[in-house]
Amino acid sequence: MTEAGPRWTLVCHGGAGLVTRDHLTPEQDAAYREALTTAADAGAAVLRAGGRAIDAVEVAILRLEDDPLFNAGRGAAFTAEGRNELDASIMDGATLAAGAVAGLSTTRHPISAARAVIEGSDHVLLGGEGADAFARAQGLEQVDPSFFFTEARWRSLERALGRLGLPVPPRPEGVAVDARAELAHDEGKRGTVGCVALDIHGDLAAGTSTGGTTAKRWGRVGDSPLVGAGTYAANAAAAVSCTGAGEYFIRLGVAHRICALVEYGGLSLQRAVDRVVQDDLTALGGEGGVIAVDPHGHMAWSFNTEGMYRARVADGEPLAVGLYKDEA
Amino acid sequence: MTEAGPRWTLVCHGGAGLVTRDHLTPEQDAAYREALTTAADAGAAVLRAGGRAIDAVEVAILRLEDDPLFNAGRGAAFTAEGRNELDASIMDGATLAAGAVAGLSTTRHPISAARAVIEGSDHVLLGGEGADAFARAQGLEQVDPSFFFTEARWRSLERALGRLGLPVPPRPEGVAVDARAELAHDEGKRGTVGCVALDIHGDLAAGTSTGGTTAKRWGRVGDSPLVGAGTYAANAAAAVSCTGAGEYFIRLGVAHRICALVEYGGLSLQRAVDRVVQDDLTALGGEGGVIAVDPHGHMAWSFNTEGMYRARVADGEPLAVGLYKDEA
Repeated sequence: MTEAGPRWTLVCHGGAGLVTRDHLTPEQDAAYREALTTAADAGAAVLRAGGRAIDAVEVAILRLEDDPLFNAGRGAAFTAEGRNELDASIMDGATLAAGAVAGLSTTRHPISAARAVIEGSDHVLLGGEGADAFARAQGLEQVDPSFFFTEARWRSLERALGRLGLPVPPRPEGVAVDARAELAHDEGKRGTVGCVALDIHGDLAAGTSTGGTTAKRWGRVGDSPLVGAGTYAANAAAAVSCTGAGEYFIRLGVAHRICALVEYGGLSLQRAVDRVVQDDLTALGGEGGVIAVDPHGHMAWSFNTEGMYRARVADGEPLAVGLYKDEA
Repeated sequence: MTEAGPRWTLVCHGGAGLVTRDHLTPEQDAAYREALTTAADAGAAVLRAGGRAIDAVEVAILRLEDDPLFNAGRGAAFTAEGRNELDASIMDGATLAAGAVAGLSTTRHPISAARAVIEGSDHVLLGGEGADAFARAQGLEQVDPSFFFTEARWRSLERALGRLGLPVPPRPEGVAVDARAELAHDEGKRGTVGCVALDIHGDLAAGTSTGGTTAKRWGRVGDSPLVGAGTYAANAAAAVSCTGAGEYFIRLGVAHRICALVEYGGLSLQRAVDRVVQDDLTALGGEGGVIAVDPHGHMAWSFNTEGMYRARVADGEPLAVGLYKDEA
């Protein structure tokens, strides 16, 4: 018998990696905390008003996508060709309905495109130009690809291509300069945003959005748009969103594996996330982290990197933000 | 304690759907049995000689891809735009190494491209033109897109577009006529090929390849290239390959779910595949089937369609082919 937790719970993350007090300036520290608070607050407002978990997840991720601090939406990492190719997925634990998109380049909000795949198609995963065309047909906001450009991510690309011995593509034209984007911390070549929630109706949802890895090539797709790898939600188990070295998360099926350990293995949520991240993922050589919530409102996170941008809030509990390993 | 089975085992499938004695002519029945026998024999020869499970899986799937009877490689279904876009994945249960490709249009053998992703990149899933470019760079055989054309699949496309009220694209030029391809049975709008194997070293592997659904749009990706959905292999659990309505297989994470029920739920392989296919998949409204093998050499299949093209062979056991529900 599991002790009842809060009536609603929301957790969001902004990526995991080399996030330490030594690597972030006080201004960066403050900017990330503010951004995570804003996103979690937006999602919590939906849940507090009796809204649905999947709506709260989408709303929180929208904020993170629009914030150039994070590698998702604006501020996305660049491919080796100097493009932003955006991936996202979202899942409703009540119905196991799921939607996902890979390789978007003109749709402002990938998480909303993923949501539209649920509502407006018989499919789960759409990729490439077809996915943008679908989002456009669904009336979702389209932008010039330069919308996603930030100077900080471009510099990351130049460094990454230098290490790989690959040529640097021409710098995109017509890109805006944004002082806030200069605060973006290069937490490693990966980053992701995500959110999980339980609503007062007892339903779970999870979502994840990313620009993928810097200097990715060959149409590489990571775990973020893959249901079962980067995102999973089932009322019978848990809702999970992942961030990290996507290939390892795909091979382990991290999000679904955590749910299976809860549903079939009888583990508590915290034990399940720790086992998969600290044991399975670490043994395989993968780095990253996860956030999760179960149907009783209990939340959990686990990461084997130096830090993870994260925030949690629940009915009757104050919002709490953490960046570093030693924060609760 | 599980009773020891044969030292090596191989199972392959050629898709599930409306496969009944009423719907296949005697010539079609014979052609499918011969094709499945050829593929299973080719894989069995690798295992009999002490070869690796992943090699046996690749070899068997190569034969099925080249055979126009199946919706994979030559004989693939067409997209709404009149193109063949091919998906595949392969996984090594010994290392959890996995490779996958989505949306190939010029690489003759998608399963070999998936295999090359393991050997030649740090990635798991590559998509679109980038995936073809990667396969080309790896020295894999490239063909004109018309290589994959078959008249039977084109007629299926025309019928599907008519039902959808969508325009029929121009017929590709320069396509070859093939009498054997005329024997292809339209088992529904979906089809897939796959293979699972245990080798004498105790290692498992699984692979899946498909042309996807007829008249697919918007860059739709099904479960076949998705590790955990259409394909999964882990020595600690089982090797699984799926076929059917891909969206349901993604939402359930069918291949990984079967492995989790074996590893964490303690179910026998046959109980695990039956529970996921007959209970979970059916409850969600999805149709299809799976083949599986466990580390003890036990094989299992389960499908909730009228039939599934399948063959099995094991050390000391004769090769057996089945098409219909009442075959063992």
